[in-house]
Amino acid sequence: MDISPDRILQTGLAFWNAKALLSAVEMEIFTELAKHPGDLATLQGRLGLHPRGARDFLDALVALRFLQRIDGVYSNTPETSLFLDKAKPSYIGGILEMANHRLYPFWGGLTAAVRTGESQNESKGGHDPFAAIYADPARLREFLRAMSGVSRGANMAIARKFPWSQYQSCADIGTAQGDLVTQIALANPHLKGLGFDLPEVGPVFEDYVAANGLASRVSFAGGSFFTDALPQADVLLFGHILHDWDLDTKRMLLRKAHAALQSGGAVVVYDAIIDDDRSQNAFGLLMSLNMLIETPGGFDYTGADCIGWMQEAGFKDCRVEHLVGPDSMVIGIK
Amino acid sequence: MDISPDRILQTGLAFWNAKALLSAVEMEIFTELAKHPGDLATLQGRLGLHPRGARDFLDALVALRFLQRIDGVYSNTPETSLFLDKAKPSYIGGILEMANHRLYPFWGGLTAAVRTGESQNESKGGHDPFAAIYADPARLREFLRAMSGVSRGANMAIARKFPWSQYQSCADIGTAQGDLVTQIALANPHLKGLGFDLPEVGPVFEDYVAANGLASRVSFAGGSFFTDALPQADVLLFGHILHDWDLDTKRMLLRKAHAALQSGGAVVVYDAIIDDDRSQNAFGLLMSLNMLIETPGGFDYTGADCIGWMQEAGFKDCRVEHLVGPDSMVIGIK
Repeated sequence: MDISPDRILQTGLAFWNAKALLSAVEMEIFTELAKHPGDLATLQGRLGLHPRGARDFLDALVALRFLQRIDGVYSNTPETSLFLDKAKPSYIGGILEMANHRLYPFWGGLTAAVRTGESQNESKGGHDPFAAIYADPARLREFLRAMSGVSRGANMAIARKFPWSQYQSCADIGTAQGDLVTQIALANPHLKGLGFDLPEVGPVFEDYVAANGLASRVSFAGGSFFTDALPQADVLLFGHILHDWDLDTKRMLLRKAHAALQSGGAVVVYDAIIDDDRSQNAFGLLMSLNMLIETPGGFDYTGADCIGWMQEAGFKDCRVEHLVGPDSMVIGIK
Repeated sequence: MDISPDRILQTGLAFWNAKALLSAVEMEIFTELAKHPGDLATLQGRLGLHPRGARDFLDALVALRFLQRIDGVYSNTPETSLFLDKAKPSYIGGILEMANHRLYPFWGGLTAAVRTGESQNESKGGHDPFAAIYADPARLREFLRAMSGVSRGANMAIARKFPWSQYQSCADIGTAQGDLVTQIALANPHLKGLGFDLPEVGPVFEDYVAANGLASRVSFAGGSFFTDALPQADVLLFGHILHDWDLDTKRMLLRKAHAALQSGGAVVVYDAIIDDDRSQNAFGLLMSLNMLIETPGGFDYTGADCIGWMQEAGFKDCRVEHLVGPDSMVIGIK
């Protein structure tokens, strides 16, 4: 018979694969190997690995194709060299650092979350999880970098795929470190960009924009999308924002976007948009469970859901366009 | 550019996929759906799911292809119906139950394990983890069923692929519930089988063998492979046993097997045997890290490693043969 339990076992134990990568990021193996490749003995010393597990650990990363080993010398793959070396601006490991010490233990409570409907992190009991993160500068900086990591691929796709030549300015609502507006500005030299987030995000944003040489075209505006009007621009962007919040907040944000735009302006929402049949985009559905675990009311949604909310807010010509991996953008025109 | 961070993110967050399946097994969703499929409202009630997460959770299982949904009615796939319905003897969820409440939290300590070389479960400090498991009847029964779950596919492959027609009897060393000798006896009606394990395993083994209608051909012998000689049979089997132990114990067990066999007898060792280059079988290498986390000295090994130990013990005509998924068997002849 052709039916095998293999895929069940592989998936059920896939936390092994995940944790091996997360621990490697935690130990900064890719950053170390980017400086200079090394053999087993050298790496044990430099990385502080115990002889019992060192070789299995490094070889598991080889078999998972995150390292390569040639004549006994370990080095990064092109992928891990670009994205997991902390010394490079292309580093996306922040999301994995956060996954390692926040999400992995919190997801241990998935059964409780599904049974009770309650989040499983420090927001247990209905507190705003963002308040806890934003109150601690070190956690805030890590969180903001993590958001860049999880968004980089989509940000680069939006910078190429949206018809930017028709617009002169954009504002990124809930901008975090500013990677979305940075990627857009890098790819479209005629555009001016604005990042909008809580004031305490300003220094992190401005460092990041300056490091990308964009200080003359990209600026920061401090404010809250709960209590303030949204800034004015030709295009308003919500990248991995709407899924954080409950239905009323999602609708309120789209209404505020409509109010802030001129006629002909565009709103662009992106997330791991779930397919309308809710049967294909596993990552989007799991991301929604992540919002269950991490927020009091957030959830991910389909393209049809988002278009419905946009139309309620007054947008027209709404459409969904795939970006990269699990992410799509939903576009609406005022 | 074609290089994307997508595979890094998918792997780093693969504990989401794993935990969704593990929680579904914990909540016995597949067992419930095997009794009767149901729509969202029915399942929320019967399974005790909170409305906030219920639909995302079930649809995530659909997108992961562990459930199907037709006209709003959820049901098992052929795969989950056969392997994850507790009412069927083909249930392999025991390993996932164990993964859910033991391995998932213990793997949170992977970084510490790799840095210190020390296990991360109740055997921390060098205690025998099996002593703790065997001392508690409920944990023992769960552990033994889990071992059947992780071994079923390989056991069925051995029952078909080994040249059993040349032999009259086999003994399975460290037999646990007895699934290996059960699958072999079911596929080879001329064979007599023996399961060898600590005496407290006897009742669980005998229940399992009787449930499979094999009580007349398959029996149990209580003993310790540390302090007793191994039983006599034409073929001695070690299924997922050698990797639990340190190098000296591995060698001792193969020497005892050689002593117990007649000339022409065979030893069959199987595990998630690592490829000789240690660069392909990621599951085998991660299983070895699991032995780091779960045991004081265990590790997985390559086919060449095992053949070397067999030859030291006096075996000849040694060879490796692939079974299924990550598992291979190593055969030696006395």
